[in-house]
Amino acid sequence: MSLAVLGTVALDHVKTPSGVKKDMLGGSAAHFAMSARLFTDVHLVAVVGRDFPDKHLQFLRRKGVNLASLKTSRGKTFRWRGEYKKDNLNAALTLATQLGVLEGYVPELTEQHARLPHVFLANIDPDVQIRLLKMMKAPELIGLDSMNLWIQHKSKSLRQLMKLVHVFVANDGEARALTGENNLIAAAKRLRQMGPRMVVIKKGEHGVLFYSDKFMFSFPAYPVEKVVDPTGAGDTFAGGLMGYLSKVRKVDEKSLRRALLYATAVASFNVQGFGMAKTAPLTMREVEERTKTLVKFMAV
Amino acid sequence: MSLAVLGTVALDHVKTPSGVKKDMLGGSAAHFAMSARLFTDVHLVAVVGRDFPDKHLQFLRRKGVNLASLKTSRGKTFRWRGEYKKDNLNAALTLATQLGVLEGYVPELTEQHARLPHVFLANIDPDVQIRLLKMMKAPELIGLDSMNLWIQHKSKSLRQLMKLVHVFVANDGEARALTGENNLIAAAKRLRQMGPRMVVIKKGEHGVLFYSDKFMFSFPAYPVEKVVDPTGAGDTFAGGLMGYLSKVRKVDEKSLRRALLYATAVASFNVQGFGMAKTAPLTMREVEERTKTLVKFMAV
Repeated sequence: MSLAVLGTVALDHVKTPSGVKKDMLGGSAAHFAMSARLFTDVHLVAVVGRDFPDKHLQFLRRKGVNLASLKTSRGKTFRWRGEYKKDNLNAALTLATQLGVLEGYVPELTEQHARLPHVFLANIDPDVQIRLLKMMKAPELIGLDSMNLWIQHKSKSLRQLMKLVHVFVANDGEARALTGENNLIAAAKRLRQMGPRMVVIKKGEHGVLFYSDKFMFSFPAYPVEKVVDPTGAGDTFAGGLMGYLSKVRKVDEKSLRRALLYATAVASFNVQGFGMAKTAPLTMREVEERTKTLVKFMAV
Repeated sequence: MSLAVLGTVALDHVKTPSGVKKDMLGGSAAHFAMSARLFTDVHLVAVVGRDFPDKHLQFLRRKGVNLASLKTSRGKTFRWRGEYKKDNLNAALTLATQLGVLEGYVPELTEQHARLPHVFLANIDPDVQIRLLKMMKAPELIGLDSMNLWIQHKSKSLRQLMKLVHVFVANDGEARALTGENNLIAAAKRLRQMGPRMVVIKKGEHGVLFYSDKFMFSFPAYPVEKVVDPTGAGDTFAGGLMGYLSKVRKVDEKSLRRALLYATAVASFNVQGFGMAKTAPLTMREVEERTKTLVKFMAV
């Protein structure tokens, strides 16, 4: 099946204890696509500026990502500059953002893309997410991600969106901020009450918690001894989750458990290199291998 | 088989968002014993003062805990007063401690207890732990727990002890403090290098990580929506781990995975009530039931 992802395509400047990298291809939709393409056809709905390097476009195309709904606008590509400190590699410190073409961005969709059954609203302004959602003709499975910035400043739009989606993906800090609940099981329940049938709480090195009315489960993260750059790990995770569900075209307990297993495996590659250094060359065979190791790791 | 546990027996005064309780039976060895007694014969090596309520002694005996090496000394029983705040139920704030008879405590063992094959050194001054260890005639399996206080103030004794034990149990904060490693996989490896063949890192609501040279694994915690009082959860966990290993008399990958599953299950009961309110009435049947639920919770 086919999956549309709306979000950002960015040029990232990242500093971590492992080094500094400039002008890397990044952004929520780009990281998501680099992961989801392993499982399904993925269509990028985003905007870049005229300064966006052609090599990145060619690279995305080579990786099988469909760019028909990627808009090039007059202006500069969104840029993010961040740092991760040694004592907390889970949390990015944003040093600078240049919105560029993101400001006033109105998503555009090809006729074909508007009919895709699966859509993921990766992290971007919730008003843009709502706008895209209204353009979709008959979405069967809608996923949503967000971030603290929108939880604080666009709470109303975000809460409206949560009523319209099926899968809500949040990290532990976001889940706590949105619900006021410190206990993650309680927070997951509250998020469920806010709309989405399925709630996925990402806990970084501590793994993932899934919650729905009928069942819940939790997996540990794949054990990574050296995190090089966590940028995009959450998007990569969501790409594995939605990519797998889109591939098997089934949303039941079994497929959700498998989907989150694959999501965990793909995300673990992401953090082992800067930007997409580890996810771009990734093959499904390597993902399967790591998934098997992960199954052994968590076996009773 | 039989298991000796050295540690504290205390009178606890605890405040949590769920309420306040005074003069509760507590202490590392008492919580450990209340859990381990579900799996094996457990012998308490500890000291109390003359003020220690007889009802607590009778209660421990009724629960099948052997008290032949429990010393009653002139002076007051060790008292701990602590609080847990709503926004971080994982971390206790110590408001007051009265060492009482713990000061200058020299453990005493019956002849029979000195010959026990399994011993757990629950949290108490490392110099007391070393002293007890030297009294044991032929220990086959030695477990060790500690706390930040000793990591900071008795680092030398603790490091000496770590060379003498087989299983080292620490929470995530302790593991980081002892090794200077923020990444828990890296921290576990470093702890292994410090002596113990088996390293168990307890992550509270995030579950547990096991590390040894040949294999490692991780389990999520049992999902508890409302934590009433986490006091003694780590000791209860260790009691389940050592109790099960002592029962099956085997330390291999399979038994360790089972042991940590049981440990997780028992510890989840502990946090659902004040002090031993939930672990004292617990039967093995209830533990088995929760273990089954836990296996489903974490199944792929």
